[in-house]
Amino acid sequence: MEQVKRMKWWGWGEEGVFFNYQDKPAFAPFVKKHLGLDLRPRQVDTIRFDAATVPDSTLPEPLRADLVGATASDRVRVDAHERVVHGHGSSVTELLHVSRFDYGRLPEVVVYPASETEVTEVLAACLAADAVVVPFGGGTNISRSLQLDPAERRPIVSLDLGLLSGVLELDEDSGLARVGAGTLGPELEEALNARGWTLGHFPDSFTHSTVGGWAATRSSGMQSDKYGDIADIVRGMTVVRPGGIVRLRPVPSESTGPSLREMFIGSEGRLGIITDLWLQVHRLPAERVVVAYMYPQWSAAVAAIHAIKDAEVPTTFVRISDANETAFSLSTQKKATSPKKKLARLAQSGLWALMRRRGWDTDAMCISYVCFEGSKADVAERRRRVVKIAKEHGALVLGTGPGALYDQKKFDTPYLRDFLLEQDVLGDVSETAAPWSKLNGVHDAVYAAARRAFDELGKQGFVMCHLSHNYHAGACLYFTFAFQAGQDADREYATVKTAIQQAFVDAGATLSHHHGVGMEHAPWMAQVVSTEGVSVLRTLFEATDPGNNLNPGKIIDPPLSLYDHLER
Amino acid sequence: MEQVKRMKWWGWGEEGVFFNYQDKPAFAPFVKKHLGLDLRPRQVDTIRFDAATVPDSTLPEPLRADLVGATASDRVRVDAHERVVHGHGSSVTELLHVSRFDYGRLPEVVVYPASETEVTEVLAACLAADAVVVPFGGGTNISRSLQLDPAERRPIVSLDLGLLSGVLELDEDSGLARVGAGTLGPELEEALNARGWTLGHFPDSFTHSTVGGWAATRSSGMQSDKYGDIADIVRGMTVVRPGGIVRLRPVPSESTGPSLREMFIGSEGRLGIITDLWLQVHRLPAERVVVAYMYPQWSAAVAAIHAIKDAEVPTTFVRISDANETAFSLSTQKKATSPKKKLARLAQSGLWALMRRRGWDTDAMCISYVCFEGSKADVAERRRRVVKIAKEHGALVLGTGPGALYDQKKFDTPYLRDFLLEQDVLGDVSETAAPWSKLNGVHDAVYAAARRAFDELGKQGFVMCHLSHNYHAGACLYFTFAFQAGQDADREYATVKTAIQQAFVDAGATLSHHHGVGMEHAPWMAQVVSTEGVSVLRTLFEATDPGNNLNPGKIIDPPLSLYDHLER
Repeated sequence: MEQVKRMKWWGWGEEGVFFNYQDKPAFAPFVKKHLGLDLRPRQVDTIRFDAATVPDSTLPEPLRADLVGATASDRVRVDAHERVVHGHGSSVTELLHVSRFDYGRLPEVVVYPASETEVTEVLAACLAADAVVVPFGGGTNISRSLQLDPAERRPIVSLDLGLLSGVLELDEDSGLARVGAGTLGPELEEALNARGWTLGHFPDSFTHSTVGGWAATRSSGMQSDKYGDIADIVRGMTVVRPGGIVRLRPVPSESTGPSLREMFIGSEGRLGIITDLWLQVHRLPAERVVVAYMYPQWSAAVAAIHAIKDAEVPTTFVRISDANETAFSLSTQKKATSPKKKLARLAQSGLWALMRRRGWDTDAMCISYVCFEGSKADVAERRRRVVKIAKEHGALVLGTGPGALYDQKKFDTPYLRDFLLEQDVLGDVSETAAPWSKLNGVHDAVYAAARRAFDELGKQGFVMCHLSHNYHAGACLYFTFAFQAGQDADREYATVKTAIQQAFVDAGATLSHHHGVGMEHAPWMAQVVSTEGVSVLRTLFEATDPGNNLNPGKIIDPPLSLYDHLER
Repeated sequence: MEQVKRMKWWGWGEEGVFFNYQDKPAFAPFVKKHLGLDLRPRQVDTIRFDAATVPDSTLPEPLRADLVGATASDRVRVDAHERVVHGHGSSVTELLHVSRFDYGRLPEVVVYPASETEVTEVLAACLAADAVVVPFGGGTNISRSLQLDPAERRPIVSLDLGLLSGVLELDEDSGLARVGAGTLGPELEEALNARGWTLGHFPDSFTHSTVGGWAATRSSGMQSDKYGDIADIVRGMTVVRPGGIVRLRPVPSESTGPSLREMFIGSEGRLGIITDLWLQVHRLPAERVVVAYMYPQWSAAVAAIHAIKDAEVPTTFVRISDANETAFSLSTQKKATSPKKKLARLAQSGLWALMRRRGWDTDAMCISYVCFEGSKADVAERRRRVVKIAKEHGALVLGTGPGALYDQKKFDTPYLRDFLLEQDVLGDVSETAAPWSKLNGVHDAVYAAARRAFDELGKQGFVMCHLSHNYHAGACLYFTFAFQAGQDADREYATVKTAIQQAFVDAGATLSHHHGVGMEHAPWMAQVVSTEGVSVLRTLFEATDPGNNLNPGKIIDPPLSLYDHLER
C-alpha cells in the first residue's frame, strides 16, 4: 500500500526532530528559575521501539478475514508498531506512559480503507463482529479522544483514514473544496496553494493532523479571526454510519431543522466515520505580514485587542502573551550568531532601556502579534489602524521582525512537551473561551487555582497564557503549565489539570475552545452544558449506536477506570 | 393577565391594517398584465370572527386543573378566538382555509406560562396526560410548523410564550443580552436601542415574530451579512425538556462535542421549549444608509454582488431584485402627490430616458440595495468602494432616495399576500441558498419549473426573485410567485410550490435558507440531508421524546393526511 505518514510511536512529530536548548542561552536558566530544575543533556536521540514489549494481537480470525475482504491484506495490520502508533493520541498522560513502554489498551488491528465503499464494508464487518471502531486521523489529539478503555473486552479496530486524502473537487466560483478526511494539513495547503487557494486553518497540530480530525474534534486554527473555526469552514460532508451514508450538500447556510452538520462536527467518532468534507477556501492573499507590539501590562493588552475587534479592523489573527508567556518566549531566543541577528539583539536592548525609562515593569510587559492579509493597500491601512489603537493603549510597536520569527516557529511548540517529559517535567496546555467581561476573571482564577494545586503537591510550578481567537462576544485563553513530576505523575498531572479546568468552569468559561472533549474534559461536560444537556447527548449516542461500538467512552460517560489516579 | 399581542385571527398583522392599491396607479394594470386579473375593491375591512363556527374545546378536566395549578386560571384559555389564533401559523395554505372559517385541527387549550418554572410544570402536566405540546411564538411561521394534525386524537396544548418577554440581562462588555423567548421583535429593539444597542436581526416577520421563534425555526434577518443568522447570534440558551432543563452558557465558541446549541436551533419545538436566549448584540451604528443601484441585467448584478463580497467590503445587507421583481416594485410606487415626490418622479423619467439612450432593455434591468453602517468615515469609504464595483458592472447609482423608501416599506410585504388571497390569488414565497456557482442555474431552473407548473394548471402565473443574505460560499435566492386560484386551490398551490422546491433541490440548492422545515418542506428533507440524515434526526426525536408529544410531525415524517391534495 501507499505509505501513510504517522508521527513517532512515542511522541510528537517526526523521528529525529527534537526541541533543542543548547542554542538558546536563556532557556536553562529560565527553567532553573521557574521549575527549580537543572536540565540534563539528552541521553538518546531515539527511543528504540521494541516489538517484544507489545502483546500479540488477539484479533479473531473471522473478523480479520472480513476486514481483508473489505480492503486488502496489506491494509489490515496487526504488527506491534502499527498497533502502538494507533493505540493513543498525544495527550501528556498517554505519552508519559507510552514513552516508557507502558502502552495501555491497544487496538487488535489497524485498517486502511481506501474508499467510501471500503469504509462502509469495514464498518459493517466490525459491527457484525461486535467490535469497537475508532477512527484515526493524525493521532495528534490531546484530549484523550483516541485513548482506549483497558476494560474493553471486544476487539478494537483502529480505522486509519490516511488513504482517503487529497483535494477531490474545487469549485472556484464558490470558494469550496471537497477534501478527503485523511488529508494532512501540509498536503492540503500545498494542493490548494498550487491553484492559488488556501484553507487558512492552522491549528498548532497542523503539520500532523488531518481535515477529518479537525472536524471530528471541532478544532480551530490560529487564523480563525479571518477564516473561521472548523465549524464555520465545513459546509458539507459525508459520514459513513451503521445505517447508511449521510451526505450533506455544501450550502452557505440553511434552515433544515437541528443542524446535522453541527452534530457530526465535534462527534469524535461517536456518530460515524467522516470520509470527506466540503470546505470554504479562500484566494491566497497578495500580502501577509505579522506585526509585533509590546504592551506595558496584560490589562492594557486585553483592552487593546477588544478595541481592535470593536473597530472591526479585519485581522487574520490577534494574539497576546501574558507576562509569563512573554518572558518564556524571550527565554527561547536563539544565540545571535549572524551580524544581522546581533544587530536585532542590540535593538532589543535599546528597546528594553527605552521601556525602563518610560517606567515600565519589564516583568509585566506582554508581547502581541497581529497578522494582516489582503492587498498591499488594505494591509497598510489596517496596520495603521491597529498601530493607532495599540499606541492608545500604551504599546510600543516592534515591527515585523519578531512577527516573522513567530510565524516561522509557530508549529514547533509541541516538541517542547516531549523534551520536558524526557526531563521528568509534565508540561501541558489547557484552553478555554469566555465572554469579554469574564476574560480577566478567568485569567486570575486559573493562576490562583494552579498555584494552589502546585502548593498542594509541594511543587514549584509555572503557568503562562495567551489570548487568541477573537469573536464579537469574547475570546480564547490558552494556558500552558509545567512542573517537575514525582513518583505519581498521573495523580500530580490530574491535580493540576483538574484545578485549571474547574477554574474555567467556575469563572464562566467553557471546558475547551478547540481541543475537543475526549475523556480528558468529559468530567466537566455536565457543568458546561448541564446535566440534561449531557442526557440529550447520551440519548443521541445510545439511540444511534445501540451497540456502543463507535469510539465509546468519549465526550460523555468516560470509563471510570481511567480516572483511578483522581481517587488515590 | 397582561395582554399578549397576537396577529389577526385570519391573516397577517394588525386588525385594520391592509395592503392598499388605490394610491398605486401602476399596480392594477401590473396585476392585469401578469395574472390576467381585474382587481376588485375590498368588500369588508374586517372578517368578523364568529365563535359559533368553532367547535367547543374538549380539554379533559384533569388536564385543565393541572394547567391552572401550574399557571393561573386566567392564563389557561379555551375560548374560541384564542384557540383559532393559536391553531395555525401564517402559511398560505393555512390562511386560505382559516379566513374562510375552515379552521382545521385546533388546540384544546392555550396556556400562558409566566416563568421557567411554570413552563416546566405545564410540560410535566401535558406529558402526564399524554397531551401534545406546541410552543407558540408570534404565529408568523409560513412553513406549517404550527399546523396541527387533524388525525391527532390526544389533547393539544398551545404553549404561548408571550409572557416570557423582555431583556433580562445585558453584558455590555461582551455585547451579549439574555432575552425572554417570547419577546417580540419591536419590543426587543426598543429595549436595546434605549441602551444604545441593537440585535440587528430583522426577518420580514420582525414586527410580529419572537426571539424564541427565530431560534426554533433557524431564521435569518435581512441584515445577516453584518449581524449573522440566528444560529450565529444565539450564543447560549435555556430549554425546558421533559427530563430537565438544558442550560447552555454563553461563550463565543467551544469544542464540546456535537453542538447542543445547534441542535435546539431549528428544532421547531420537537426537542423542548426554549425559554430564554443569550444573543449577540451590537452598538447602534453612528450612521446608516441604504443606497440603490440599477443594473442593466441580472447576470451583471449577481457578478457585482459576488465582487463586493470578494472585496470584503463590510456591508449590512446587499440585495438585488431580478427584472420581474424590479418591475413589480415599480408597480407599487405611490402616486406622486407632494412637489418633492413629483420632482423625484421626474428625475426617474430622466433616468429611464438615460438608460434607453445607453441601449438598456428596461424590461431586463435589476434594482439593488446596499446598506452601510458604521462611522461616517467608514460608511463613506465603503460606499465609495461599492459604487466603484457597481459601475464596473455597468450599474447606475440611484442614490439614497429609493433606498430610504425601501427601508420604510420593508416589513409591509406580508400584507400583500392577504390582499391577493382576498382576490382569490395565491401568492407565496419560496427561498433557498446555494453556492455562487449554482445561483444562476437555480434562478433559471425555478423560472422554468414554475412556468411548467402554471402551464400544467392552465394558469397565467408570475414569478419574481431577489438575491440577499451573502456568504463567502454563496447566497440566498428568494422567489415570490402568484396565480389566480381555481376550484381546487390546495392542489394548485401544491403543484406550483412543489415544482419550485423540487427545482431547488435538483439544481443543488437547499430546501429553505431561513423559513424552517415545518410540514411544508419536510418532504424534501431526505433529498437535502440524505435518507440516513433523516434517520439520524428521527432517532434523535424518537429517543428524546418517546411519547411523540413535542410538536410531532414537524421537520420529518409529517402526517400524510395533510398531503392529500398532492395525490388527487
